[in-house]
Amino acid sequence: MLDATRLRTPCLFDKIVSADEAATLITDGMNVGVSGFTPSGYPKKTTLALAKAIKAGKKCRINIWSGASVGPEIEETLAEVGGISGRMPYYAASNKTLSRQINTGSVTYIDQHLSHFAQQIDYGFYGDVDVAIVEAAAINADGSIVLGSGVGNTPMLVKHAKKIIVEVNTSIPLTLEGMHDIYICSKPPERTEIPIYHVGDRIGSPYVSCGLDRITCIVESDIVDHVRNLSAPDDTSKKIAANLVDFLEHEQRHGRLPQQMLPLQSGVGSIANAVLMGLAESKFEHLTMYSEILQDSVFKRLSKQMTLLRQI
Amino acid sequence: MLDATRLRTPCLFDKIVSADEAATLITDGMNVGVSGFTPSGYPKKTTLALAKAIKAGKKCRINIWSGASVGPEIEETLAEVGGISGRMPYYAASNKTLSRQINTGSVTYIDQHLSHFAQQIDYGFYGDVDVAIVEAAAINADGSIVLGSGVGNTPMLVKHAKKIIVEVNTSIPLTLEGMHDIYICSKPPERTEIPIYHVGDRIGSPYVSCGLDRITCIVESDIVDHVRNLSAPDDTSKKIAANLVDFLEHEQRHGRLPQQMLPLQSGVGSIANAVLMGLAESKFEHLTMYSEILQDSVFKRLSKQMTLLRQI
Repeated sequence: MLDATRLRTPCLFDKIVSADEAATLITDGMNVGVSGFTPSGYPKKTTLALAKAIKAGKKCRINIWSGASVGPEIEETLAEVGGISGRMPYYAASNKTLSRQINTGSVTYIDQHLSHFAQQIDYGFYGDVDVAIVEAAAINADGSIVLGSGVGNTPMLVKHAKKIIVEVNTSIPLTLEGMHDIYICSKPPERTEIPIYHVGDRIGSPYVSCGLDRITCIVESDIVDHVRNLSAPDDTSKKIAANLVDFLEHEQRHGRLPQQMLPLQSGVGSIANAVLMGLAESKFEHLTMYSEILQDSVFKRLSKQMTLLRQI
Repeated sequence: MLDATRLRTPCLFDKIVSADEAATLITDGMNVGVSGFTPSGYPKKTTLALAKAIKAGKKCRINIWSGASVGPEIEETLAEVGGISGRMPYYAASNKTLSRQINTGSVTYIDQHLSHFAQQIDYGFYGDVDVAIVEAAAINADGSIVLGSGVGNTPMLVKHAKKIIVEVNTSIPLTLEGMHDIYICSKPPERTEIPIYHVGDRIGSPYVSCGLDRITCIVESDIVDHVRNLSAPDDTSKKIAANLVDFLEHEQRHGRLPQQMLPLQSGVGSIANAVLMGLAESKFEHLTMYSEILQDSVFKRLSKQMTLLRQI
């Protein structure tokens, strides 16, 4: 139930609508931006309602813009009713219907460098962001948005969206508040370096700037992220992990790495997960880490050894 | 004749030696760093004297480290007497003797990314800088060095050199003083961005830090740089230039480039020279430019249109 811990000023309660009503904002041909990065922090209710409306006869095919792949409540459900005309910058191939539509050419797909897409939106290369649908943990009294476990291109989509639907999801723990560091780069030629010099540096805001007047409506949600499980480390990935730890310890013994280990950057997937589990059993202490995606191993195994981590 | 405009504290006059005497500092197997970048600002007297000594029987083969190619007084003259055992990071293939020795394997050559070499010297990957030979316009009272028309890896070579020979060249106009902006990057993990945001930004010193006590000796020189002439623009390169100017003007007309042109970056060689000459005949004004090497066209033709330029 939405209460004052989630909607932090009374006027926000006046914006609450049903998912069906929110879905009426989305019409044929629109560019629709969605929050999230991988199946983390993506909206669910509005796209499910839209798919239901399309199945019932609404004529609507849209372009879906995101940070990375999102969950099946968007990619697969809308594809199944023929509701997707374009997709950028990435999708999850586990969505078989969308895969088929892309491969047969009925969905226009641009597979892009994820980090380039926000700048291209900022330049307006692909047109307007007609609607942004953002899953949030809460909305502050000034309209700024508290995200959940994924950020992706949400800040840029919100910056440009003509209408904004916020799905406030009561299943997101409010303890996530404060973990984000939201920063939007200036466009070239005013672009400067991203001034992160150490893992713990903070350069932006914990919230996505928005403004109360720009929030068109709010939909209550409690659907949890449809995450994909990683396979448990097998013997090969365990051996890879052991070799890497051995290499790092060897370099440290020979003075080519400092005793206080340099920041690590972890990748994504089962092998990265296994490597991080291997590090958990190493002698390293006070590790610092950058990562695009934080996987179970970081939280379950490495927290005793990890001083700072930063998702980038 | 060296006077107080070139040697700016009396004790420097006590360090003046002949080129023959300076050459005795260089012995078999040494790593010898030289100033300059392309045939600009490289030392000449000491290496000519060393070649003469080798021809007269001195047993001496050395590794030559530079910023880029240098002039024939180093590369060709020493190669002709078999005085070069190794060469990094680049050489001019117009030196036929050195080319042959490299291709037959009697000279060990590493052809490197020029911008990586200074960091590798800083890490000590290739061993010590036994001697640095630096051509200079003048030496300040604090020992800091006023360079001529080339910088290259001179600051890093001076930072690490065990002995430093400065060739003060009276043919270098002192009007060059102040044009340099000498900056040494910190080693990773302390490396930050190079904080140049606009062509006119200055981030370092006009001089190479050295210190009087580190200058082993001074050799007077008046040999001018052995520069290579660029071929005059032919019809093809003139057409390339016209096409580029047309493209830039077209983009400006359509609002995709701002009216105040963005900074340019020019390359090296006859075509780049022709393109810059084409820009000189364009309607562009107040141009700003970065360049690795500044060619005749910039000074002869573009100076009326160029507000700022920066060699990088």
